[in-house]
Amino acid sequence: MAGVNDARLYLTRSSLWKPESIEVFGVWKTGDDICSRKREVRSLCVRGSSSYQSVDRINGNVTGINGTVAPSVGKSNGWKNEKSGPTHNSMLGRFVEDRFVFRQTFVIRSYEIGPDKTATMETIMNLLQETALNHVMSSGLAGDGFGATHEMSLRKLIWVVTRINIQVEKYSCWGDVVEIDTWVAASGKNGMRRDWIIRDYSTQQIITRATSTWVIMNRETRRLSKIPEQVREEVKPFYLDRTVIKNTNDSNKIDRLSEETAESIRSGLAPRWSDMDVNQHVNNVKYIGWILESVPMNVLEDYNLTSMTLEYRRECRQSHLLESLTSMKEAEVETNLVIASSCRADLGSTHLLRMQEDRAEIVRARAEWRLKGKNK
Amino acid sequence: MAGVNDARLYLTRSSLWKPESIEVFGVWKTGDDICSRKREVRSLCVRGSSSYQSVDRINGNVTGINGTVAPSVGKSNGWKNEKSGPTHNSMLGRFVEDRFVFRQTFVIRSYEIGPDKTATMETIMNLLQETALNHVMSSGLAGDGFGATHEMSLRKLIWVVTRINIQVEKYSCWGDVVEIDTWVAASGKNGMRRDWIIRDYSTQQIITRATSTWVIMNRETRRLSKIPEQVREEVKPFYLDRTVIKNTNDSNKIDRLSEETAESIRSGLAPRWSDMDVNQHVNNVKYIGWILESVPMNVLEDYNLTSMTLEYRRECRQSHLLESLTSMKEAEVETNLVIASSCRADLGSTHLLRMQEDRAEIVRARAEWRLKGKNK
Repeated sequence: MAGVNDARLYLTRSSLWKPESIEVFGVWKTGDDICSRKREVRSLCVRGSSSYQSVDRINGNVTGINGTVAPSVGKSNGWKNEKSGPTHNSMLGRFVEDRFVFRQTFVIRSYEIGPDKTATMETIMNLLQETALNHVMSSGLAGDGFGATHEMSLRKLIWVVTRINIQVEKYSCWGDVVEIDTWVAASGKNGMRRDWIIRDYSTQQIITRATSTWVIMNRETRRLSKIPEQVREEVKPFYLDRTVIKNTNDSNKIDRLSEETAESIRSGLAPRWSDMDVNQHVNNVKYIGWILESVPMNVLEDYNLTSMTLEYRRECRQSHLLESLTSMKEAEVETNLVIASSCRADLGSTHLLRMQEDRAEIVRARAEWRLKGKNK
Repeated sequence: MAGVNDARLYLTRSSLWKPESIEVFGVWKTGDDICSRKREVRSLCVRGSSSYQSVDRINGNVTGINGTVAPSVGKSNGWKNEKSGPTHNSMLGRFVEDRFVFRQTFVIRSYEIGPDKTATMETIMNLLQETALNHVMSSGLAGDGFGATHEMSLRKLIWVVTRINIQVEKYSCWGDVVEIDTWVAASGKNGMRRDWIIRDYSTQQIITRATSTWVIMNRETRRLSKIPEQVREEVKPFYLDRTVIKNTNDSNKIDRLSEETAESIRSGLAPRWSDMDVNQHVNNVKYIGWILESVPMNVLEDYNLTSMTLEYRRECRQSHLLESLTSMKEAEVETNLVIASSCRADLGSTHLLRMQEDRAEIVRARAEWRLKGKNK
């Protein structure tokens, strides 16, 4: 199942992938025959605990998640007080729209807001990650691999994320309830896409859209792979042909910054023990914090981040010292936001996070900023 | 109301307080007259939105939280889809035990676990903070101040946390559901205490206990103050005489480490933009991460943190560079844990977080560690 395969979102990266070679934003096809097949296969889904027990057997070293940390929601004794207590099943999310879409709600917590009193971009990415993982876990189709289908596990294949674009229309405040929808689709010939929509629960207004691209890699050779036909047949029935970001102009490659082109460089960034995930790799979400370290303080204080695109290129461990490079410019073009077609960004920025020692690229990023308090 | 006053837990600190002068772990008194009064006063509590609108007016610069970030749970339109969706009111917690105790459940999220695959100490403190804040917000008695009663606000008084002790019996995994109870009590003559119990929701086993001590400060002079009689009368009816950590041996002062006594010093720790709270002070919970930066890697990898005591002494801003000092030793005494009377710690440690420039103390800490996988 496709939904199974992208569970590692933000948790894995490759040092060898070549995202440039992947066709992104391909054309999605649907048809009655596929829909029938979808229902048929999906009807086999059961929410069980078995799939939680061995989620890492395929890509244990890559996902950074293994069976011992798999959610215990499937435990038979996990809900014994459910009638008198909160509905934890709901807290973990549920399927909607004929199980094509997974939906989870969250209350923004006091410690998830930043200096500007709203949920941070890190918080948003954390919640997207959590929704994606619960989507996979709730599907009951994880097979014997956390991030791989049965046919993939036979071939030692895993999914890795190459790119994510998040477009924020409105940042939530502490105590706000947000509702996140997520689904997966094909991306070009050999990729998979996962999209998300975040709604303000009280108004049902869409406040954030995000899309991500995934490719298949051999977990031993760390080389990219085409999707084997058997895997394609396996995942195809679960794709939902719905784009969250329409006329995106964000598919352009992000320029590589250097000492010459960057206006601001922050060196000596040291990952902390608490930045590590279970595989002692830096969690992908943490990169955002380092990217922002080289953004001028007045931008952080006076502007809202309205769009961010990250291109993941290499993994990072605790022993690595990092450098964050930023180049700011006045925005020239229409923003990516399609929510309000007339909205424009006030500033654009390009970023590079790299190893300090050998300058190897870890993440390229591009962002758009809007002056706070300014009408769209 | 007492519960109102400790909302700033972890969000504020003082650069001037003298925790040594505060009598901690005083004797709690109850009686029928107090209980009657409690019920009488508590019956006036209504869960409304008004108290959310102006939470920072008393101590805006201190609490780091102002009205714009107050939870929106009281919004009239916030729950319009409640029947079809999750019970968000439950997600925010509820009163139990005649409103003496506030209870909230949480699902441990994928990004809240650390390299050892369980919830981190930072996560635990974040959840304690969240429960305390929702306790206060749900009480409806916040008056016109986030961290102060009416009588306190008239006198420009606020609560500040001086000490917290957390004792962890068992760390939760991703997907585990935990249930947190919290309440407040008197602490000596001029202090207040907030206690927490964390239970594993599925087994109802107590897995963590925590207690914290608060004193009153003038928000303008930053000097400690006695509790005025009018304030005492105001808060007394809401105290619950229940201790969470019985025979604690943790009230001893924590030794101050120096270059001579520390075995490990990690300098150049720079707060990141994302470490700041809404008042651009470092959030108290972040200190734990820096403290752990000077703990030997083999300890972090091979031992569980079973107890941690933090003494807050000074606030910290982003421009400050910090130094983390640690001294480890074999454990000699019985641990603080009363959950299993026979359990012993294998290692003890003492910590100091200080300004690099003038060596001014920010936090002293003491911790206990138990070898992973070892039976109690």
